[in-house]
Amino acid sequence: MSSHFPLARLAVLGTGLIGGSVARAAHRLRLCRELALYSRGEEREVVTAAGIADVVTEDPIEAVRQADLVVIALPIAAMGPVLRTVRDSLDSKAVVTDTASVKLPAMRLFQENLDGRVRWVGSHPMSGGERSGFSFARSNLFEGAVSILTPPENPDGEALALVETLWLSLGCRIVRLSALEHDRRVAAVSHLPHLLAAALIRSVDCDALDLAGPGFRDVTRIAAASPEMWQEILLANRENVLAALRSFLTHLDEASVSLQTETGAALKQFLLEASERRQSFEKFPS
Amino acid sequence: MSSHFPLARLAVLGTGLIGGSVARAAHRLRLCRELALYSRGEEREVVTAAGIADVVTEDPIEAVRQADLVVIALPIAAMGPVLRTVRDSLDSKAVVTDTASVKLPAMRLFQENLDGRVRWVGSHPMSGGERSGFSFARSNLFEGAVSILTPPENPDGEALALVETLWLSLGCRIVRLSALEHDRRVAAVSHLPHLLAAALIRSVDCDALDLAGPGFRDVTRIAAASPEMWQEILLANRENVLAALRSFLTHLDEASVSLQTETGAALKQFLLEASERRQSFEKFPS
Repeated sequence: MSSHFPLARLAVLGTGLIGGSVARAAHRLRLCRELALYSRGEEREVVTAAGIADVVTEDPIEAVRQADLVVIALPIAAMGPVLRTVRDSLDSKAVVTDTASVKLPAMRLFQENLDGRVRWVGSHPMSGGERSGFSFARSNLFEGAVSILTPPENPDGEALALVETLWLSLGCRIVRLSALEHDRRVAAVSHLPHLLAAALIRSVDCDALDLAGPGFRDVTRIAAASPEMWQEILLANRENVLAALRSFLTHLDEASVSLQTETGAALKQFLLEASERRQSFEKFPS
Repeated sequence: MSSHFPLARLAVLGTGLIGGSVARAAHRLRLCRELALYSRGEEREVVTAAGIADVVTEDPIEAVRQADLVVIALPIAAMGPVLRTVRDSLDSKAVVTDTASVKLPAMRLFQENLDGRVRWVGSHPMSGGERSGFSFARSNLFEGAVSILTPPENPDGEALALVETLWLSLGCRIVRLSALEHDRRVAAVSHLPHLLAAALIRSVDCDALDLAGPGFRDVTRIAAASPEMWQEILLANRENVLAALRSFLTHLDEASVSLQTETGAALKQFLLEASERRQSFEKFPS
């Protein structure tokens, strides 16, 4: 663990699945001497009752005060207002990161609000799933996950090390990418699959749904996730999602033509390449 | 358990994942006094070594002799030759079932070879997954799965009860459908999802694949399955798969248009309906 840990004060803004899990892990692993959480509405009571934080507040300024690391785990739409509210109250030595699923818009908010004031590094821990909210948060949510860091153009080494150590402590494998490249790749492996799962479950008649086995269950699981969250993600990354969709449709069309023309050899080759690719993927570190 | 169980002799033709799991379950649950398996090639040695059967033979005639229930767990391409080989050696009181994923062609083979000689009932246990072969067979594979029975037009009550009791004993929930209706519905919840998963994993660049999280893993898992088996299934059920694909593409296009035109409300409605549908599905008995 870097010499900065345990942190004097860690602030987590947002206590949904991701923010709540960061908080639970920080508490369990004693990553900070003081843990401050910004939580709103009904969830705040549940978060307070969990007894993991020193401060649970509806005031983001109170949460970030004297924090050496601030993790913003809020929808992108909420990130801007919160950043404008807290930017003058951040410690000049603080490092700010976020957990947004689309990094270009998050980076722009950091640039507008923090550049020249406070150091920042973008993060995207590829965890989560179909459930949301603090009640599903767990301290081991990030174990074995990839956390993608999207640093600014000329990153501060210390800030980068601090954010990297946070995710490493939580059990992540680190990948560094530009925000642009992050958004392109994640469109393909996360955002498009969500859209496909949603379209698939909508396209199946209820009488057929009753027959579905574990394969269908797996394929469509992510479609159960929060529509509000996914609407925001898909719109924020629409150009990349549409490009990934075009690529997918090209491949699907190839299979469809093989089926229509009953070209068994081509269909088998299509399935063989997919199978090999999926099997080699299973061997990747996760 | 029906009065026919334990069976005097159960014959399972084919010892891949499905046939092997039927055999393992029959052994564990003592569903028969004698268990005879038809197994070929290298797998036969492994099956013999498992010590679960009284007879493991490369001769299907030897396997079916005096069996009161015969389960054919072979690819459709192998079913015809085996049926022609064994039909004159079947006990006149025997009942024959199969486990093929597409029921119309399997039904035609039963009609051609067994009608007027021996009673038959089609079965399709909706289990399996991305792995195949005897080494993955397990006695609890069918627990909690749906088994779809596709009886002939004027089914024999006793034959139907016998096959139904087999799958109930193995832990299945039973659904009865015509072969036609089976093939239509299963195209939507099993065959099309396989094609989509294969097209998705092919469409993703390797650099993006390295970032994939548990969601992507779930969506694409089934694509790892045997290309030979799936080529046969998709071609055998091509009309229904193509119809399911058209329905899927209509829904996907709806989402794509919402994204292209940045119509957030429509996109959210699309995702909301998918999420509700997926959540209600999770409550179904499985």
